[in-house]
Amino acid sequence: MPGTDGSPAPHPGGPRRGVLKTRHGEIQTPIFMPVGTQGTVKAMTCKQLEEVGAQIILGNTYHLNLRPGPELIESFGGLHKFMGWDGPILTDSGGFQVFSLAKIRQITEEGIRFQSHLDGTKIFLNPETCYRIQKSLGSDIAMVLDECPPWPCSEEDSHQALERTVRWAKQFRDIAADDGFFARGHHAFGIVQGSVFEKHRAECAQALAAMDFPGYAIGGVSVGEPEEEMLKQVAAAIPHLPADKPRYVMGVGTPPQLLKMIALGADMFDCVMPSRLARHGSAFTPDGLINLRNERFKADHAPLVEGLDNYTCHRFSRAYLRHLNMANEITGHTLLTLHNVHFFLDLMRQAREHIEAGDYETWSAAWIERYEAGEKA
Amino acid sequence: MPGTDGSPAPHPGGPRRGVLKTRHGEIQTPIFMPVGTQGTVKAMTCKQLEEVGAQIILGNTYHLNLRPGPELIESFGGLHKFMGWDGPILTDSGGFQVFSLAKIRQITEEGIRFQSHLDGTKIFLNPETCYRIQKSLGSDIAMVLDECPPWPCSEEDSHQALERTVRWAKQFRDIAADDGFFARGHHAFGIVQGSVFEKHRAECAQALAAMDFPGYAIGGVSVGEPEEEMLKQVAAAIPHLPADKPRYVMGVGTPPQLLKMIALGADMFDCVMPSRLARHGSAFTPDGLINLRNERFKADHAPLVEGLDNYTCHRFSRAYLRHLNMANEITGHTLLTLHNVHFFLDLMRQAREHIEAGDYETWSAAWIERYEAGEKA
Repeated sequence: MPGTDGSPAPHPGGPRRGVLKTRHGEIQTPIFMPVGTQGTVKAMTCKQLEEVGAQIILGNTYHLNLRPGPELIESFGGLHKFMGWDGPILTDSGGFQVFSLAKIRQITEEGIRFQSHLDGTKIFLNPETCYRIQKSLGSDIAMVLDECPPWPCSEEDSHQALERTVRWAKQFRDIAADDGFFARGHHAFGIVQGSVFEKHRAECAQALAAMDFPGYAIGGVSVGEPEEEMLKQVAAAIPHLPADKPRYVMGVGTPPQLLKMIALGADMFDCVMPSRLARHGSAFTPDGLINLRNERFKADHAPLVEGLDNYTCHRFSRAYLRHLNMANEITGHTLLTLHNVHFFLDLMRQAREHIEAGDYETWSAAWIERYEAGEKA
Repeated sequence: MPGTDGSPAPHPGGPRRGVLKTRHGEIQTPIFMPVGTQGTVKAMTCKQLEEVGAQIILGNTYHLNLRPGPELIESFGGLHKFMGWDGPILTDSGGFQVFSLAKIRQITEEGIRFQSHLDGTKIFLNPETCYRIQKSLGSDIAMVLDECPPWPCSEEDSHQALERTVRWAKQFRDIAADDGFFARGHHAFGIVQGSVFEKHRAECAQALAAMDFPGYAIGGVSVGEPEEEMLKQVAAAIPHLPADKPRYVMGVGTPPQLLKMIALGADMFDCVMPSRLARHGSAFTPDGLINLRNERFKADHAPLVEGLDNYTCHRFSRAYLRHLNMANEITGHTLLTLHNVHFFLDLMRQAREHIEAGDYETWSAAWIERYEAGEKA
């Protein structure tokens, strides 16, 4: 990564252009990562992901651990071969889903006990099992096990979660290092927690930076807090993370949010929004999100976005895509997901170009202004 | 079509290799036509249909007439441009769906009155409106309005439906001819009815043959009757249809049924089976239909069909496809539909090659034997 000397001392943020090397190729940052929860990006084939230029995708450790299980995936040589994706894969730790999906959970210093939301199977997750699962998946970028506090939470609860997150990160890192994970070219990212307390964000970032991870994530954002609060916490963490390592903001966000976080110095993002909204008939455009179920698109001959270089925009009208959505056709979900995912990827491509050209601030301000004006129209 | 002199006098059947010219290109027969009910083959994009070698697809007049409506589709220049498919399209008359789906229907000599299953809208279908809708869709091969009697039905009811079918066919043909439909290169096929009465099949085929249609369909089969009965009725109709015109058996069937009908002299088939079964986790193989939800495929590293030239078989294991189906992932429906549709298209490709090679009977007998042995295993 270009930037400063990698010291954990505070430094200014700002948009940046980077390259991250993985076992399955290089990633050009800033980058958006489509989410492949259960071993597939919903409604898209790997071929379609390649066609829209996806550089890296996410796999969800919680889901894949429950079904089909890490042993089966390992018997195929890992998640890449199992799902037919040859590019890099980042896997989350599974911790976040335990909090949002598991039936019953109990968290102690030793780890997390929970019951599968599918069949009630009792499962124990600690830094070691969390590492072992992601090793079985063959993850290019693994995430440490963390404790993501709910929002809102007290300062005391936030600090307790932060301290546990730091201890678990250290355990995860040491186990992975001893096992040769890093030596074989895999990465693991530490995760900054701290809720809405900027001093906690700084403390956590500093503690993780001292462990020299290959990259850092900012978690516990987009958990219900206002956007302003979210941006404040990202801004609070970044100056304490090494400038020469990638920074990944987890689970965000809208196109304007991504552009604002790039301006703060964030490099990587993932979000289910483009694919989830597609299945509800919503499409991203430079003039804001539109919902094709709206009557006004009934006879609209225009493509979703004029000139956007993807199969959906090349070949289909809004009226046709609306028809497929109204008729609840799977093909409609596929074509809209393909467009929305490509829209996010293309936005990141534009961001990289404008960072290189040195006019990121003016370009992104104009982009956000047009998008938000369309949303209000 | 190769064969005899086109005379309506009885002639022997037998497998045959043909070419049908349409406004959107030539069709090599025998051929299977994937069904695009609502302006899309379910779970597949047009690009994927092109990749698996689909030569022609079906559109359903009943569904498209209700939603999004023929006027809208015509405003796009027809169904081809609306749905982004550049190859030939055959549209059914909509009559069959009126019988199977409409809420209330009343049939008289003038036509069929019915209420939409979607919103109760009252609609009137007669030979003229049936032609006008298919003209708006820009169909390459339109089907006449027919009356498909239920199974079982009395000899009297069958004959009444047959006579009406013949009268309506004549009206449809004359209206289309006067309107220049045939002169512009469109086709319309007459439909042979007659239930399970072979003399009715012969009578109907002869009456339609005298009208000199560009092609002929055999309808009212696969409506619940035993396979033996279905084959008997196809065999009863074919000798009375002109040998130089294509013969299309509507809404069938299993792979062995298609091979048996080709042996009788049938050229064209359509069926929702490959796509519908795909969405329930079933895949066609040369050793019969398999259901991936079966536990025995849980760790199966093999492709669905070794050596079959499609994306699904090239890149994915049965275990992965099973996982997607168990997790109810849309991508699983897409990959399995793609395979099943390709399996049917490839079976027709093999049939054409063996007809050309002159060994169709021995090849198809061996193919059916292996398939049925697998089904029983």
